Amino acid sequence: MLTTDLLPPIENEMRRVLALADGERYHLLHHMMAYHLGWEGEGAGPEATGKRVRPVLVLLTAAAAGGDWRAALPAAAAVELLHNFSLIHDDIEDNSPTRRGRPTLWKLWGIPQAINTGDAMFTLAHTAIIRLKLPPERVLEAAEVFQRACLRLTQGQFLDIAYEQERSLPLTAYWPMVSGKTAALLAACTELGALCAGAGGEIRAAYREFGEKLGLAFQALDDELGIWGDEARTGKSAASDLLEGKKSLPVLYGLERKGEFARRWMAGPLTAEEIPALAAQLETEGARGYTQDTAARLTDEALSALERARPRGEAAEALRALALRLLKRRA
Amino acid sequence: MLTTDLLPPIENEMRRVLALADGERYHLLHHMMAYHLGWEGEGAGPEATGKRVRPVLVLLTAAAAGGDWRAALPAAAAVELLHNFSLIHDDIEDNSPTRRGRPTLWKLWGIPQAINTGDAMFTLAHTAIIRLKLPPERVLEAAEVFQRACLRLTQGQFLDIAYEQERSLPLTAYWPMVSGKTAALLAACTELGALCAGAGGEIRAAYREFGEKLGLAFQALDDELGIWGDEARTGKSAASDLLEGKKSLPVLYGLERKGEFARRWMAGPLTAEEIPALAAQLETEGARGYTQDTAARLTDEALSALERARPRGEAAEALRALALRLLKRRA
Repeated sequence: MLTTDLLPPIENEMRRVLALADGERYHLLHHMMAYHLGWEGEGAGPEATGKRVRPVLVLLTAAAAGGDWRAALPAAAAVELLHNFSLIHDDIEDNSPTRRGRPTLWKLWGIPQAINTGDAMFTLAHTAIIRLKLPPERVLEAAEVFQRACLRLTQGQFLDIAYEQERSLPLTAYWPMVSGKTAALLAACTELGALCAGAGGEIRAAYREFGEKLGLAFQALDDELGIWGDEARTGKSAASDLLEGKKSLPVLYGLERKGEFARRWMAGPLTAEEIPALAAQLETEGARGYTQDTAARLTDEALSALERARPRGEAAEALRALALRLLKRRA
Repeated sequence: MLTTDLLPPIENEMRRVLALADGERYHLLHHMMAYHLGWEGEGAGPEATGKRVRPVLVLLTAAAAGGDWRAALPAAAAVELLHNFSLIHDDIEDNSPTRRGRPTLWKLWGIPQAINTGDAMFTLAHTAIIRLKLPPERVLEAAEVFQRACLRLTQGQFLDIAYEQERSLPLTAYWPMVSGKTAALLAACTELGALCAGAGGEIRAAYREFGEKLGLAFQALDDELGIWGDEARTGKSAASDLLEGKKSLPVLYGLERKGEFARRWMAGPLTAEEIPALAAQLETEGARGYTQDTAARLTDEALSALERARPRGEAAEALRALALRLLKRRA
């Protein structure tokens, strides 16, 4: 089973769900959602849709856990709609003018319509999950898993916004934030996949842990790339996280060290010119090594959780390959 | 059964749901929701909570349809959390600085936190509905009814925001907007109450229609009061809807007449001084009578739907009284 074979069915299921919001008077509402999903408007196409990592993760997990991936399509659509709803609102909250090279929804249609369009997509995400054709009690379990992820997502976003007011934070503040912002949704992807396949207790817990650790490892690596990444590979300018004052893992590590980096950081906003030297200083103080070690440990934990889940068949291979691709973007 | 007896159990159920979002690092997130709900912060108390009309409607319907109202408490909490989530986002979208005499959430904590706090409350509303202790297939039915209301709410809000750009609109544009913004949620209240009581097909449809027509009638009356209301009774200055340029039912009626009122309206924003004369002109052109007639017809349809639902016991009386109280605010 090739991951690329899964993409058209995922888009189809999402289109079916989105159609529920369409109607004579609501074409623009539908269009705004379709625009954000990369289907319509200027710049629509594969570049604009994103990689659909989350729904693919749901389907591969369902197959690896011995289920029929087709039965998990509603859950796949639900997680991708949830992810995209959160991006629509994040873009407003972060005042971001572009996403994936296109103007953000609020830039084109204003903040009021963008907030409401996000709400509509959030509603559709909840609608998608109860379209699962499983025994009713199992559908309710899936809805619970899904809603727990929604709540953790808003809790993570709450911390992210609150942290922006702080110049410094303890290293321990990092994990609750990324666990809500990144890991909660990936954990829901793998747990939902396993649940759709009818996997019970321990197997389901192992898949959930795989997703959770995958999310944490991914975030740690992303934070490393945000400071020391190769511009040509990451597509964003190296060290841009420092310039934006992002409280990433290496930065919080550096602040705990209370060295040269911390002194400069606490003195106020950095300028573009001093970024290269400061990134080098942060590396000298051990932050890069610490971040890499942390990511490596979390990657090991993710892969070991995956093995405990005893994934089967070619989906197991595809799942390992997906995890490695996410976690080895430097390779 | 007194309506006031229902209020403490409603608040308790809402508090239980809200507690799910609390936690060591999330007290402020919880507090922002509790503030909006009127429980905490400056000005907290009965004045700040609102009347909880929607959850009361759920519980009275459940009892009148022969069920135990206690079993419907999760649905009651869900509709009130949904209503309040929509108010949090509406206040941002409308740029409203106050609600029920207190600063709005976004005024106190900024737009990013307010958007996200609304999202958290929206999540909790979905969580509340699946807390229903009914057979799983019935809980899923309730979730479907609830989600349909959510979608209609966002569709209505979409139209409301879009209409702000227009100086004129046909009268037919009015109904889809208010049906989404007001009627959808009241219809969900009565349908959920009936569903929780185990009412089937026709009875459930009659209760739903009762809620839907109640919402439409209420909105038409509210629009009349917004122009010709007694300031002392409505609590907002008479004719304020005209000053704000709100596309209410009498205004759209007046615009269709293409008379003196329409000519002035189309010429641009009105000033406070000309409002009394213009309100009188609109009345002369028949808009007030039309609005009253429409409200009276919808009220009749609501009450006749209620009778078709054959409500039982003292809850039936309380339900009629609630409807009349909502619809006869001038009495």
